[in-house]
Amino acid sequence: MYEFGAGKSAIRTVFEETCALREQGRTDFWDFSIGNPYVPAPPKVNETIREVLGQYAPIDLHGYPPNNGWPATRAAVAKNLNERFSTNYSMGDVVMTGGCAGAITATICALTTAGEDIIVITPYFPEYRMYIQAWKCKCIEVPSEPETFQLDIDAIKKAITPCTRMVIVNTPNNPTGAVYSEESLRALGDVLREASKRYQKTIYLLSDEPYREICYDGAQNPWVADCYENTIVCYSWSKSLSLPGERVGYALVPPTVTNHSMVYDALLGAQRAVNTITNSLFTRVIERCVDLPAPVEEYERKRKIIYEGLKEIGYEVVRPQGAFYLWLKCLEEDDHSFCRRAAAEQHLFLVESTDFGCSGWARISYACSDETLSTSLPAFKRLFDSYGGYQW
Amino acid sequence: MYEFGAGKSAIRTVFEETCALREQGRTDFWDFSIGNPYVPAPPKVNETIREVLGQYAPIDLHGYPPNNGWPATRAAVAKNLNERFSTNYSMGDVVMTGGCAGAITATICALTTAGEDIIVITPYFPEYRMYIQAWKCKCIEVPSEPETFQLDIDAIKKAITPCTRMVIVNTPNNPTGAVYSEESLRALGDVLREASKRYQKTIYLLSDEPYREICYDGAQNPWVADCYENTIVCYSWSKSLSLPGERVGYALVPPTVTNHSMVYDALLGAQRAVNTITNSLFTRVIERCVDLPAPVEEYERKRKIIYEGLKEIGYEVVRPQGAFYLWLKCLEEDDHSFCRRAAAEQHLFLVESTDFGCSGWARISYACSDETLSTSLPAFKRLFDSYGGYQW
Repeated sequence: MYEFGAGKSAIRTVFEETCALREQGRTDFWDFSIGNPYVPAPPKVNETIREVLGQYAPIDLHGYPPNNGWPATRAAVAKNLNERFSTNYSMGDVVMTGGCAGAITATICALTTAGEDIIVITPYFPEYRMYIQAWKCKCIEVPSEPETFQLDIDAIKKAITPCTRMVIVNTPNNPTGAVYSEESLRALGDVLREASKRYQKTIYLLSDEPYREICYDGAQNPWVADCYENTIVCYSWSKSLSLPGERVGYALVPPTVTNHSMVYDALLGAQRAVNTITNSLFTRVIERCVDLPAPVEEYERKRKIIYEGLKEIGYEVVRPQGAFYLWLKCLEEDDHSFCRRAAAEQHLFLVESTDFGCSGWARISYACSDETLSTSLPAFKRLFDSYGGYQW
Repeated sequence: MYEFGAGKSAIRTVFEETCALREQGRTDFWDFSIGNPYVPAPPKVNETIREVLGQYAPIDLHGYPPNNGWPATRAAVAKNLNERFSTNYSMGDVVMTGGCAGAITATICALTTAGEDIIVITPYFPEYRMYIQAWKCKCIEVPSEPETFQLDIDAIKKAITPCTRMVIVNTPNNPTGAVYSEESLRALGDVLREASKRYQKTIYLLSDEPYREICYDGAQNPWVADCYENTIVCYSWSKSLSLPGERVGYALVPPTVTNHSMVYDALLGAQRAVNTITNSLFTRVIERCVDLPAPVEEYERKRKIIYEGLKEIGYEVVRPQGAFYLWLKCLEEDDHSFCRRAAAEQHLFLVESTDFGCSGWARISYACSDETLSTSLPAFKRLFDSYGGYQW
């Protein structure tokens, strides 16, 4: 009771600080806090909204769709996946949801029992902890590989117990930008298959994929559900179509999932119980926009500015392979202290790493203008010089 | 685990049957299943959508709003309530949510602890049971007054124990159309105040008000929060603006609520954990449409057709004072059997009452065309005659 409101995410804390500055009319700062896509939604999205407004009677457009979304939309999603990943999904595998977060919370609600363990890979999107705790499960943190931030398969293997019900992976990764290799995902699949057998229960893999299409250097994110049969895929168009405020995504239950129809129904029931149902208008819009490409080149250009700029100054930074976050090693060990100093002295608003499950790092969301990125570099340089380089 | 998907609501079961008939091209049936408003959304809604598409850059329009909604929208909601109910609310009392159901589930998540009791008044909207069970609370059913379906204050009083954390009221009521009197709500407030004191805990009143504006004969729904200081008001524009598919509503935490800011933060945290967050576009639309009137006269005309028609045939029906449902006493004691026979023999699709927590009744949603209503009456007459009137 009351507990969920007690804490505020580190991301939102910094975001609110910068919002307050904006309200004061201040512009002399750099806001790297929230993953609010900077690239605007493609013009076709607004065109399609206008189109459906003319095409449907208000009762059909704004009325109740089935809780899992209109069949035509679910069919369009399945078709799009099948074309891209040589899969064989149907509308009966797709539940439309209020964003990817809605898909995750409904999946956890549907497939876990209070007291079970859910494994997350550090550093991880801090909201996972809330989604997990909401259903009275335990959030078990397992570190990724130190240098590459790839999956540490042995560490995951060791963390699995008879209480484990689920593992959450997020590739491309927020906050490190790592894209997990297909090889390591297949190895994870082997581990989960073996553990499910050993403990005579299904251990689910939840694949959180809002950045799926935002991969650099021509790479493609592996299709995680190919690597393990009991994968639930959670997706949203928040990042690929720059629609984070519109809460539109889906959960996919591939036909390979054990007791498929029971799992699908559980998910649908869970989303009805918690009301992470997406809105009708955007379901129609997505149906017509599902094939639009994500603005990969634009984020790739931004990555280059910030990654190369910071590296040149002397910062230790992880080269992002996807998503739009840069993971930067703090100049002192205490990430809170470092981020406070960056904000106070240089007006650089970064998110400290402790909330992500590890210390000594800061997250930079580079979903901002090229100008914000390039003009921030002299401030980063002054910060570096004021520390005299790395102090630990 | 899996349990939420196990059952299907009686409403949705009938709705899906009629959807299947429609897909077969059948039109020789009457669908009274779901509360999908028949009156279209006012033209201003679509006009406003077009307006905001032109007014905001896509990044601002479709980007992340604060989780509790844009300040301007919350201020517009508070202002509208203050003008209508002589209250003194501010934007800091309002959390925008994904519909009224989202507001309810977030409120239950925020303000209860697993194992506590939540009292509902039978007959009640069956989804309450799911929202309650999702948070591992117990759904305690307390009957309303037999003839009037008003609150039975003594029965509620007797049902309160040290485990009680919340009472849910719904006025105008789905399914009976009862509008609770201010007098009885004040008496309920007295009972809850006294019990809170006795058990040294805050017992909350959750007021579920999606039909708030749909009251007949010039009546107005009492402002429930005036009757008890620890009321949380849950609302949506699903019915008043005919937007049930768009999932836009709010929870209001009046300043009188004990530990106001803690409760508000808990609610905001809960809705972040479960992701019942409303979409950005419709938040902007509602901000500009909050003052639009609900189509009361149209539903009043529909009520007259169905209520008087059925009464004339000889059915026992409750005269709705609000909402758009008619509560009809079945011709035999077994409501399941009655509703099956009505569908099979006369193609009348009604919802049986057992799911609403009482037996022997059926719900008719008269949110349908005048023609559907009037052409159904001969079929209702044949059904009545086939039974030879009431058999119990």
